Amino acid sequence: MSTPAYDENNIFAKILRGEMPCTKVYEDDVALAFMDIMPRADGHVLVIPKKAGRNLLDIDAEALAQLMPRVQKVARAVKKAVAADGITLHQYNESAGGQVIFHLHFHILPRWAGVELRPHTGEMAKPEALAALAEKIIAALA
Amino acid sequence: MSTPAYDENNIFAKILRGEMPCTKVYEDDVALAFMDIMPRADGHVLVIPKKAGRNLLDIDAEALAQLMPRVQKVARAVKKAVAADGITLHQYNESAGGQVIFHLHFHILPRWAGVELRPHTGEMAKPEALAALAEKIIAALA
Repeated sequence: MSTPAYDENNIFAKILRGEMPCTKVYEDDVALAFMDIMPRADGHVLVIPKKAGRNLLDIDAEALAQLMPRVQKVARAVKKAVAADGITLHQYNESAGGQVIFHLHFHILPRWAGVELRPHTGEMAKPEALAALAEKIIAALA
Repeated sequence: MSTPAYDENNIFAKILRGEMPCTKVYEDDVALAFMDIMPRADGHVLVIPKKAGRNLLDIDAEALAQLMPRVQKVARAVKKAVAADGITLHQYNESAGGQVIFHLHFHILPRWAGVELRPHTGEMAKPEALAALAEKIIAALA
């Protein structure tokens, strides 16, 4: 029942090492935030810790504590940037819990009254659409 | 666009003041965790901060940082107690974001491979069923 080991070759580890691109909205010594490439809402952002951790179940407690004010900061900025009415936060642990990429990440999902989240279709957003949203979020963070 | 003020008469504030009952699984100086009375999975637990905060958008950042290691601790215990394969974490902000009770809370949802979460039906669990699950979670926390 123990959590499997961290895989250094997961996509988010590659993004952190600069081996894969991302549409970044925020970065500091603790966290990186970037646009989800298969967004379930316009403005769907992921926030990840720089410290390696498979998910909430195995991340260092202190790293988690440091990460969350960054999640809060980005959530506020997303809400403002896309004039959302609310935010839904999702975080998945292990495959049964919905996890696909095994580096801890929080999904920040902007919500509007009466609008459902889009289903997981696997469809990729257009890079220019993500860049335009990222620009708004970066402005809201400033 | 600012977050509305905290309402001292929300149900979780009443639970914290001992004016309403809950089926408690964990408590310390920072957090309280108890069984969701309308569980979307057997072992569905809520973790709330003792400090007043409407949701993630307005809670004091330090209170949030202190809360999260408690969320982690309870999530691990829930997974162990009900032999779950994974955990899904949900946290809702404002009505459009899915929030119904306006005191910050994290939903810990145990998951099993191939088993969907139950829909929000508004149906209450039997108190004795919640008590039996709480007992297992308390044992896993020990």
